[in-house]
Amino acid sequence: MIGISHETVSRGENDTLPTPVVVVGTYDKQEKPNMMTVGWVGICCSKPPCVAVSLRKATYTYSNIVERRAFTVNVPSEKYIKETDYGIASGKKVEKFSATRLTPVKSDLVDAPYVNEFPLVLECKLLHTIEIGLHTQFIGEILDAKAEEAVLEKGVPDMKKVNPILLVPETWLYYGVGTYLAEAFSIGKKI
Amino acid sequence: MIGISHETVSRGENDTLPTPVVVVGTYDKQEKPNMMTVGWVGICCSKPPCVAVSLRKATYTYSNIVERRAFTVNVPSEKYIKETDYGIASGKKVEKFSATRLTPVKSDLVDAPYVNEFPLVLECKLLHTIEIGLHTQFIGEILDAKAEEAVLEKGVPDMKKVNPILLVPETWLYYGVGTYLAEAFSIGKKI
Repeated sequence: MIGISHETVSRGENDTLPTPVVVVGTYDKQEKPNMMTVGWVGICCSKPPCVAVSLRKATYTYSNIVERRAFTVNVPSEKYIKETDYGIASGKKVEKFSATRLTPVKSDLVDAPYVNEFPLVLECKLLHTIEIGLHTQFIGEILDAKAEEAVLEKGVPDMKKVNPILLVPETWLYYGVGTYLAEAFSIGKKI
Repeated sequence: MIGISHETVSRGENDTLPTPVVVVGTYDKQEKPNMMTVGWVGICCSKPPCVAVSLRKATYTYSNIVERRAFTVNVPSEKYIKETDYGIASGKKVEKFSATRLTPVKSDLVDAPYVNEFPLVLECKLLHTIEIGLHTQFIGEILDAKAEEAVLEKGVPDMKKVNPILLVPETWLYYGVGTYLAEAFSIGKKI
């Protein structure tokens, strides 16, 4: 306990956990592609590989995922920060792909479009829908991951080349990924 | 499509999404505190505030959460990278709190210990258990968030002071949080 005092920062400040910010791609009933920027995202299983995204029921993307049972998770590079932030606006009112000039590409594997300009794309089939509260969590099985050739290093995406954007909730600020620190499953052996 | 070619990088490479690395705190049946380092984590609802962590059934922490229906999510600072990486080892074999000299503190709100030295702590009550595959996802309602006084800026944790660790799966490398880029809900207006 020496020298450390923890203060309650209230439940509203819960989400100061940094998160990668991603764009979820879906089709609506009329085949119109939509993109929505999401911060409540995370890998949630390795076998089968799954990713979870949480959305409010009121969003356009929510209805699209319920209808199509598919979505893509697109990881933007820092150079697309404006387009990514724009993706927070509602798809019911604006054509976000047109407005941002990003290119929707129909996935061969799932009934959803991915963002062609983004370096890393996960194509997902809906597996589970969990009603939590304000947000509904969709768990998608990742049927394929696609990466832009330019970001690959020995066949694996290199994080400094992908150059993703981190969102820090509560303060609502974007950060980049910083310096390399250490290898996992390795530095802890020095304890 | 101009100039961009996406390559399939196989499902095994699905999880190149960077993730904050956190330590999950639990008690076992004998009140022994345990810590486990986890990368499959993410906020999944705002109201009630919830966080999801995914674990394999074989872990010590899995049994503890099932038994106690509570856990803490502790965000380490970069200076605790060795202790954090050590937390990947199995709690069945080693006393990780003792080995790392980190201090378990009993939460007043939930039946789980938090890590006193870490700057940000979420105290969670188990709400949902979702069996996905190799991993089980536990969704916990965040009853309180606690932050070390030194990392607060106007009552909210400042990310550069928290200085969390990011894990990039597949390459299994740790990175820091990088430079400030822009304000969310703002820079996109320049589209």
